Amino acid sequence: MDEVLGSWVDGVAGTSIPIDDRGLQYGDGIFETILVRKGIPRFLELHRERLRRGLARLGIPFTAEEGLNADIARAAALAPPLAILKIIITRGSSQRRGYGPAGNPVARRVVSLWPTTPLAREVVEQGASLRVAVMRMAESSPLAGVKHLNRLENVLAATELMNSPATLDCLMLDVGERIVSGTSSNVFLVKSGELLTPPVNRVGIAGVMRAVVLREAPRLGITAREQELTLRDLRDAEGMFITNVRIGVVPVEGVREHLFGMTEIARKLRDHIEALDA
Amino acid sequence: MDEVLGSWVDGVAGTSIPIDDRGLQYGDGIFETILVRKGIPRFLELHRERLRRGLARLGIPFTAEEGLNADIARAAALAPPLAILKIIITRGSSQRRGYGPAGNPVARRVVSLWPTTPLAREVVEQGASLRVAVMRMAESSPLAGVKHLNRLENVLAATELMNSPATLDCLMLDVGERIVSGTSSNVFLVKSGELLTPPVNRVGIAGVMRAVVLREAPRLGITAREQELTLRDLRDAEGMFITNVRIGVVPVEGVREHLFGMTEIARKLRDHIEALDA
Repeated sequence: MDEVLGSWVDGVAGTSIPIDDRGLQYGDGIFETILVRKGIPRFLELHRERLRRGLARLGIPFTAEEGLNADIARAAALAPPLAILKIIITRGSSQRRGYGPAGNPVARRVVSLWPTTPLAREVVEQGASLRVAVMRMAESSPLAGVKHLNRLENVLAATELMNSPATLDCLMLDVGERIVSGTSSNVFLVKSGELLTPPVNRVGIAGVMRAVVLREAPRLGITAREQELTLRDLRDAEGMFITNVRIGVVPVEGVREHLFGMTEIARKLRDHIEALDA
Repeated sequence: MDEVLGSWVDGVAGTSIPIDDRGLQYGDGIFETILVRKGIPRFLELHRERLRRGLARLGIPFTAEEGLNADIARAAALAPPLAILKIIITRGSSQRRGYGPAGNPVARRVVSLWPTTPLAREVVEQGASLRVAVMRMAESSPLAGVKHLNRLENVLAATELMNSPATLDCLMLDVGERIVSGTSSNVFLVKSGELLTPPVNRVGIAGVMRAVVLREAPRLGITAREQELTLRDLRDAEGMFITNVRIGVVPVEGVREHLFGMTEIARKLRDHIEALDA
């Protein structure tokens, strides 16, 4: 807990949860990671919508929306100029041990505030180095798209990066060798002037910055759509970028023998999105 | 925490963990559920072996074997005639937020003791009712077999049971419609006098009672082997049973139109395994 700037469990300042919480026991919950810029949580409505969708998909009853809003406001007021606000909502503690949520458990919310730094200017200008993770992701339609707490695949892929600090992220493929995402980012290719990103209905996470790009690109006259992609699609791509709410739109310098770097489209999107009010 | 009989975090009596524990944040850890019968943790060496294999697969360094042994001995000494000892080992708390385990985190162990009751005699005699879960499991070879903390699939399948208390477990199929397991049990079919159970190299958990059945069956002159199974295989099966360390070998009364009940082989195996010393 060295780094955390503040944390609240069900609205009360605290740094621990009971060991019988189903988030720990089974990964039975969801999370959101929100960028707070100058005290303003960015894209808050998109995060709220995804949170609601995730809770519905997992069948977790959640009625503490007001308490959560108060948590967010309290954390944002304490935030330095750039910070990450993380929300975890678990199914809470069951009455009995076991997978079934016995006794109508009450959802537990854990809100925490973390420091973060802007991405180095040279990475934004020259692009991020990516490698391809050795690990392949499972396909799992019932849970696809949801930002749930079962993230061992992302952890194992990220672990592959621990000895190469110059590599910003890993590109994750599924068992069918299709491109899914980075470990903590979504991926876009630029092909014939169009933006292409893998669908998230079989596997992957529906990232909030991904949603922002899909929403804002047409406003800049750029077509953006979902399409299945493999590493072969990198060959004739004009550019590639990764996205998440912390780093925004970041060009990819290269993956294996495919070299990209900053492109006109990525710069336009990045600048436009960075300039949005919230 | 209503029910827990005792719990220890890194060897110290306690009921909570820090919110930055990677078990909560990402499901980054493994667990074991051990039956303690008359103060003796059953099949302890098999549990220990699986624990070591799981830690190795996830790349979690763990050097507190002695502390864990002391935890187990302490809990077993407190246990009523029948109890469940649950061990969770997480990768611990990272120095920084993020999937990559920054700063060489130290594994955290959570040991807890829970009450349990023997299965009703009539279920053992007549067999357990099973339904087929609607949810399909993903295939994920890198994590297959490991008893890790990413158990949302089991939770969602078990949730399907919440409104049918007479049904003991759900049969889980993978996305290819192959039989995987119950939500908290492994599955065996009896066909032509042989025992068949699905492999656990693509999906599923390598259950300790499954291992005990595979080890003990030959000692009773029964052939037991791994084979891929679908619901079609239930048609010409002579019997079916589920296994876990808590309930042992339990015959299946029926799945859909396929009716089984107790069989000679299941009874022989059950009695033999129940009579084993530990």
